[in-house]
Amino acid sequence: MEYPEPIAKLIASYTKLPGIGQKTATRLAFYTLGMAEEDVIDFSKALASAKHDLTFCEVCGNITENTMNPCVICQDTSRDQTTVFVVENARDVMAMENTRDYHGLYHVLNGVISPSSGTGPEDINLPSLIRRLSEHQEIDEVIVGTNVNAEGEATAMYLARLLKPAGIKVTRLAHGLAVGSDIDYADQLTLIKAVQGRTEL
Amino acid sequence: MEYPEPIAKLIASYTKLPGIGQKTATRLAFYTLGMAEEDVIDFSKALASAKHDLTFCEVCGNITENTMNPCVICQDTSRDQTTVFVVENARDVMAMENTRDYHGLYHVLNGVISPSSGTGPEDINLPSLIRRLSEHQEIDEVIVGTNVNAEGEATAMYLARLLKPAGIKVTRLAHGLAVGSDIDYADQLTLIKAVQGRTEL
Repeated sequence: MEYPEPIAKLIASYTKLPGIGQKTATRLAFYTLGMAEEDVIDFSKALASAKHDLTFCEVCGNITENTMNPCVICQDTSRDQTTVFVVENARDVMAMENTRDYHGLYHVLNGVISPSSGTGPEDINLPSLIRRLSEHQEIDEVIVGTNVNAEGEATAMYLARLLKPAGIKVTRLAHGLAVGSDIDYADQLTLIKAVQGRTEL
Repeated sequence: MEYPEPIAKLIASYTKLPGIGQKTATRLAFYTLGMAEEDVIDFSKALASAKHDLTFCEVCGNITENTMNPCVICQDTSRDQTTVFVVENARDVMAMENTRDYHGLYHVLNGVISPSSGTGPEDINLPSLIRRLSEHQEIDEVIVGTNVNAEGEATAMYLARLLKPAGIKVTRLAHGLAVGSDIDYADQLTLIKAVQGRTEL
């Protein structure tokens, strides 16, 4: 026996989300049936709108509304135009912006170099970074904020080798102990990095 | 800084689902942006349709399409009209139907009696069961298939006390060891129930 088609379709849609299997999708679909009509309609509209009304910034690759391209950050001339922070995705931009501590520009790769999954420099938003750097000679530092894993490090290394000869300062976010963390809970690699990067008091 | 409105709205919608917090919702929203346009539109339509095109069967309380009321099972005269299987929700009907071993009717309570959360017999689909039983004298057995927990048991007990005096046989699903399970992994209550319900070989 099958569920009535409207709910079967909703279950099928939920299973397309990452980490959501048949059981969870069924639970979510039935939960949806019990939600306020207004919330479900909002949800339905938000899905369509997110797909229709958003695009990637033509300058930095961050997500932005169709009506705002280049994005808010790229259009903000009050920001430091000499520094570009390179990140893997739009969520990283948000995390950094929420610190309110960085006032330069961004470049969103929308991916990382990953030989194991066949993702090369041309497959991510990297050629546009090279173009941007050559067109904007005022940019003198590229901060590489890719994640701290094999692929993030490989991407950082690639960028350093490519950009340093062009006279651009390439820096990497510091590795070390998280603020508030316990040394005995830190993993070995983090501890080693923390010792290597020790600073004088 | 806030995300562009279309994605902020989508994140807000995802957080309304059970067990999905801000972080997961953000991850799902960005994943949605990367999904095939067709899949997202299907998802959007499925949400609206599930809310608009489904209703509760006027006889048994199971979910059914607006165009099919009473539901497929209630309309199927080839089914055994003398037995009603009482369950908590529509998913339980599906689980039972998938066994292909039961051929009677169902009654979906859409809840359980739960004094602790203030849910009484009138708050679930129970009055309609009483009405149904009095209108259909051919029903001679009610199988109570509520979940095996305090509330499910309380609901089963309530039904037994209410229906037995009216001459209706009220049965409860057997408690015991799951097929394929190990005795040493079974919880104590299940073991006790399995001993109490032992059968002669």
